[in-house]
Amino acid sequence: MPRMTASLPYDPQRLAVCADEIIVNVRELAARGWTPATSSNFSRRMDPSHIAITVSGRDKGRLVADDIMVVDLEGQPVATSQKSSAETLLHSQLYARFDDVGCVLHTHSLNQTVASRLYARRGSIRLEGYELLKAFIGNSTHDMAIDLPVLPNSQDMPELAAQVEALLDAGPLWGYLIEGHGLYAWGRDMPEARRHLEAFEFLLACELEMRRQGASISST
Amino acid sequence: MPRMTASLPYDPQRLAVCADEIIVNVRELAARGWTPATSSNFSRRMDPSHIAITVSGRDKGRLVADDIMVVDLEGQPVATSQKSSAETLLHSQLYARFDDVGCVLHTHSLNQTVASRLYARRGSIRLEGYELLKAFIGNSTHDMAIDLPVLPNSQDMPELAAQVEALLDAGPLWGYLIEGHGLYAWGRDMPEARRHLEAFEFLLACELEMRRQGASISST
Amino acid sequence: MPRMTASLPYDPQRLAVCADEIIVNVRELAARGWTPATSSNFSRRMDPSHIAITVSGRDKGRLVADDIMVVDLEGQPVATSQKSSAETLLHSQLYARFDDVGCVLHTHSLNQTVASRLYARRGSIRLEGYELLKAFIGNSTHDMAIDLPVLPNSQDMPELAAQVEALLDAGPLWGYLIEGHGLYAWGRDMPEARRHLEAFEFLLACELEMRRQGASISST
Amino acid sequence: MPRMTASLPYDPQRLAVCADEIIVNVRELAARGWTPATSSNFSRRMDPSHIAITVSGRDKGRLVADDIMVVDLEGQPVATSQKSSAETLLHSQLYARFDDVGCVLHTHSLNQTVASRLYARRGSIRLEGYELLKAFIGNSTHDMAIDLPVLPNSQDMPELAAQVEALLDAGPLWGYLIEGHGLYAWGRDMPEARRHLEAFEFLLACELEMRRQGASISST
Repeated sequence: MPRMTASLPYDPQRLAVCADEIIVNVRELAARGWTPATSSNFSRRMDPSHIAITVSGRDKGRLVADDIMVVDLEGQPVATSQKSSAETLLHSQLYARFDDVGCVLHTHSLNQTVASRLYARRGSIRLEGYELLKAFIGNSTHDMAIDLPVLPNSQDMPELAAQVEALLDAGPLWGYLIEGHGLYAWGRDMPEARRHLEAFEFLLACELEMRRQGASISST
Repeated sequence: MPRMTASLPYDPQRLAVCADEIIVNVRELAARGWTPATSSNFSRRMDPSHIAITVSGRDKGRLVADDIMVVDLEGQPVATSQKSSAETLLHSQLYARFDDVGCVLHTHSLNQTVASRLYARRGSIRLEGYELLKAFIGNSTHDMAIDLPVLPNSQDMPELAAQVEALLDAGPLWGYLIEGHGLYAWGRDMPEARRHLEAFEFLLACELEMRRQGASISST
Repeated sequence: MPRMTASLPYDPQRLAVCADEIIVNVRELAARGWTPATSSNFSRRMDPSHIAITVSGRDKGRLVADDIMVVDLEGQPVATSQKSSAETLLHSQLYARFDDVGCVLHTHSLNQTVASRLYARRGSIRLEGYELLKAFIGNSTHDMAIDLPVLPNSQDMPELAAQVEALLDAGPLWGYLIEGHGLYAWGRDMPEARRHLEAFEFLLACELEMRRQGASISST
Repeated sequence: MPRMTASLPYDPQRLAVCADEIIVNVRELAARGWTPATSSNFSRRMDPSHIAITVSGRDKGRLVADDIMVVDLEGQPVATSQKSSAETLLHSQLYARFDDVGCVLHTHSLNQTVASRLYARRGSIRLEGYELLKAFIGNSTHDMAIDLPVLPNSQDMPELAAQVEALLDAGPLWGYLIEGHGLYAWGRDMPEARRHLEAFEFLLACELEMRRQGASISST
């Protein structure tokens, strides 16, 4: 066994640490109902060229070490016959482009799914006037606005990835929605990515409730 | 005791395994509020001619081994004086018709109950444009539609079963609603049946929220 | 200590069993948010003339044995200096009137509170066409209707109790609402009282959602 | 170590007790989703001149002893290099003004956030006719009304604190909202502060649902 380990292109101890962090956090997100029906996928940078990512189709409320695999910055499996999600490219493009991205979280909550459909035609959701905007790294006031982009859904990942690249070219971004699908959010490490994810989820929930109350700022 | 076991028409070890799987999964579903007031029932195929199924009237959040009994493909109790649900026939007809059905889950969530009433007159709910449609076995894209049937409620099980047979004749199906009552979903094994159940529940919750937002595609 | 116990007018072992049953069940109800801000109260018949009931003002999510006391059928404390809720009379009147009432549960959920206000002027809520109506003892079909009474709120307990007596004179009843306040439900034992409570809560939640969807049968 | 402890201006045993109380209670509030994205802050009086308070930016669902620090009645850190929230002044002003305030809880739930925006222009929310109004210390009937103030949000804490002082001058108060931000509630000890917090949260949830049902008393 030591010989096999020695031949791996990554540090297996580092994989164990990253897998553990993913398992603990994703089980908590699953318990909130944000990963229905084995959907959603999650990743963590291990080193400059390797990413730990969830294996496709696993129940996110019951993740174990065997449900986490390694891919490279092109999203290709490394030293495994396991298969990651079709959307792996949407993870790896963020790690490849930004050296300081350390964690990418993709969930499918009801609020994310419904908001993405309501604002698909408009192309973005304006989030404005909430104290929780301070949760996004670099913000220190509620007195600003964020436009969360909504991309059309597609099963063609290179096409989706190209749309994301265009968004990233346009300015700083903490996340985006895909129509009828869910949210991508990221950060330098797991706590930061999770803080961004929780802030987007909360603000989308607020916007949907403001709309139900007939008082949304960001109407379609 | 060995003599009694030897005379059973099924493998008691297999029953223990199936009962355990039902107990673990149903307790999780109960914790989400999908089985209010001892409602709902759940089954798992043991072998070609026997089904493990929940005993009638038990609290689904507290299931133990004694709450699981055996019925045959006609829904008749096997080697027990326990009583299964009045709706046992709706389980056994699926196992009898399809060799590859391994698990049937019937729940009573608020979303299922309300959606079934809102769409009863129309007879079905169109689910369209959601990434989560990929959760249904055989689907690989969001770019399709599923019509989830809604049957009128009845306490006459042979009559209800005959309506289900007609639905099954009409084409492939992953589940159906009964008006004011709840959802039936199934699959080849417990994880697949549960994935289908979770997907239907999530998509019905999305449709109800889209309606509250004045933006449902599938309006009554 | 044996002498003190010997002088008690009730069986302390029976109190321990009833207290345990109350604690386990009420903690579960509290976890669902049905007992906000130390509200709600719960009781269980110990013998023909004694009732175990929660002490006033305790956090229902953290109940321990010391939070359960004994009252008689007039609602007076027995062999204790603890104080039960101001609403104790609404419990004891049910035990005094019906020999087969074994458990009374009073909760303050959001659905109960809001529904009680929406239907206060009408005086009752019609629950009709739901499979879950079968959860009420004596019902075997969804094809019937229940009118859940809504009483005006009052801090005058004898006055409230007199209104309840009039309701009980009028016919069989499984529970009632008090305006802006909450629900009383009961049964022959804890599982039955809890099944009735869960059924009312679920059906009120369905009715509120039907109203939000513009489709309530029982409109104000 | 004894020498270091001896030189502290507060009793470290008392800090340990207060920290424990904060940790247990705040984890429960976090589990309800009232502290999204590391928001919210919580404090407990240790003695006449010291306050235990949560360190800025910590995940409230995972609080440990190291996440609790000490400040004085001006909100300045005592014997620590840790940093408390920018809003520490809103805690310390309550302890400085009222000798009998023992606990201050500040949360960011969805209901608090949305209600604060809907009623910001009006400046307060009238809570009336609910039994749960009895949860506020000093109230013994549902037959009264509370006006929960809503202050404009600001990152200028002395300015916000001055507005709160004006509110406190005007009469007895159990809490206030800040627009797009959240709720402050307090009490003589943790159980009382928590009871007030839970009562406000519940009553705001009821008011939002009454509005969705087209039946709010306190419309904008």
